[in-house]
Amino acid sequence: MKSYEVFKTGIEEGDFRIIARALTLVENDLEPAAALLKNMKIKYEVPVIGITGPPGAGKSTLVNAITGELVSKGHKIAILAVDPTSPFNFGSLLGDRIRMAQQFNNPNVFIRSIATRGALGGISVKTLEMVDLLRAANFDLILVETVGVGQSEVEIAGLADQTVVVLVPESGDEIQNIKSGLMEIAQAFVVNKADREGADTFANNLKKLVHEQHQQIPIFKTVADKNEGIAALCKWLLKGNKQLNERKTLLMAEKAFRIIQHQRMLDIDKTKLREAVNEALLDSNFNIYRFVDSWIKHS
Amino acid sequence: MKSYEVFKTGIEEGDFRIIARALTLVENDLEPAAALLKNMKIKYEVPVIGITGPPGAGKSTLVNAITGELVSKGHKIAILAVDPTSPFNFGSLLGDRIRMAQQFNNPNVFIRSIATRGALGGISVKTLEMVDLLRAANFDLILVETVGVGQSEVEIAGLADQTVVVLVPESGDEIQNIKSGLMEIAQAFVVNKADREGADTFANNLKKLVHEQHQQIPIFKTVADKNEGIAALCKWLLKGNKQLNERKTLLMAEKAFRIIQHQRMLDIDKTKLREAVNEALLDSNFNIYRFVDSWIKHS
Repeated sequence: MKSYEVFKTGIEEGDFRIIARALTLVENDLEPAAALLKNMKIKYEVPVIGITGPPGAGKSTLVNAITGELVSKGHKIAILAVDPTSPFNFGSLLGDRIRMAQQFNNPNVFIRSIATRGALGGISVKTLEMVDLLRAANFDLILVETVGVGQSEVEIAGLADQTVVVLVPESGDEIQNIKSGLMEIAQAFVVNKADREGADTFANNLKKLVHEQHQQIPIFKTVADKNEGIAALCKWLLKGNKQLNERKTLLMAEKAFRIIQHQRMLDIDKTKLREAVNEALLDSNFNIYRFVDSWIKHS
Repeated sequence: MKSYEVFKTGIEEGDFRIIARALTLVENDLEPAAALLKNMKIKYEVPVIGITGPPGAGKSTLVNAITGELVSKGHKIAILAVDPTSPFNFGSLLGDRIRMAQQFNNPNVFIRSIATRGALGGISVKTLEMVDLLRAANFDLILVETVGVGQSEVEIAGLADQTVVVLVPESGDEIQNIKSGLMEIAQAFVVNKADREGADTFANNLKKLVHEQHQQIPIFKTVADKNEGIAALCKWLLKGNKQLNERKTLLMAEKAFRIIQHQRMLDIDKTKLREAVNEALLDSNFNIYRFVDSWIKHS
């Protein structure tokens, strides 16, 4: 029996311990991660939903409420929480993780945090791989929660089939500042904390904005910590995006692009490169672009 | 005469209009950007200082004060303001840019904003190239201001020779939450708004922390909007990092790595890739990792 097969079987059977171990292998590029990824059956039909939005919008509370609702209907859920570790975080994200703890002991909910350091391409490929591994298990829905800072639509889109952008009605004016970039990201908007004053105005303005830009993006109003509006949202989530075939190809091509890029990056021998740089720096006319040219030619 | 030579000469002579146009060429990968980068004299001895820190620390005000001080001493300064455009920014950075406007008409100060979309590797390579282009001009100091969210030390370090981390004494406790990651980034700390209550305690605790981790990182106290402590900081900035040779090689190798990565990325024909994905998706057993394998083999 090949070394990846125990993992393959365990993942297909939904064994949480084996899924957790396999995710660790993939996260750290340990054998037999590559063989496992190539040989498992990735169920692209399982909806993978990205949940994003500004800090304080209540993403974790919403994920909690969605999970509670779906589990009560007999579904199995996986949650991947992507924490961008910034040196300026000051550990503020820990609170979110603690809030989610009420789902930790549920046998139908699998939760995993993944810390990403900054922005270098290789790391997010790991996240793609981890999502694909979860698709090979027997979940009905996969939620990927990200903190919405500095992400491009492609980056979020590559992670998930569909992205839900969570907003809060801080003020009626703010809506005018929402960039069109958000429209590119969102396949649905959630106006959370919808019991706040000004929430209706906010949601209506958002609706107008969506309409003006000739988009058809549904807007859900929720009060996540009171479980309001969650059932309607969940119904939409489970439908998935079977219709969006062109978009699916585009996202898949983007994913392939990033995996290829990552593979090629692993080809570069960093020690050799550093030695070559060290030598080249002795030339007082050192120019890094000429150096790179000749390095590519000779390797 | 080769097409890049007009730019080369203009940059060397410090012609702001030509520098601005050349930066646009580099930013958008337009001819003759590549030839220009390879043929210009990059003065690696010009200090490039990264200024980073959490939002609200007063980075722009500090950059303003530093610039004012240096210009009054007869120096020529370039400022590259890196704005990570997040869909959740809500235009909040505009205020910073406006605050910096008092330097806009100074003939010895060149200011350029660069918007980076999210985190994909290619974009930050552009920033590296733009910094190198500024090194080829006749500036005495180049300041690169970044918003400190989700950046890894390598990413910041690759941009600048030395990085100044700006902090504010919000509370005496906060110091305990400063991650050791900050020590890896910082070649100097600035405690700004040092006239606030608790500032001395904050600076002392920071000093202790630096000492405990066996680091030798200077700590400067400033009140940027009153110009206090700026002269001492500027003296340190102008010294540059002539001593740190091993670190210089490391950073240069990291830069080379990212440029190589970027070049290889440009090699991938995205249209061809998308067509191949489109075809491969017809197979109900489609697996993206097997697809990537065969794509790399056949291209």
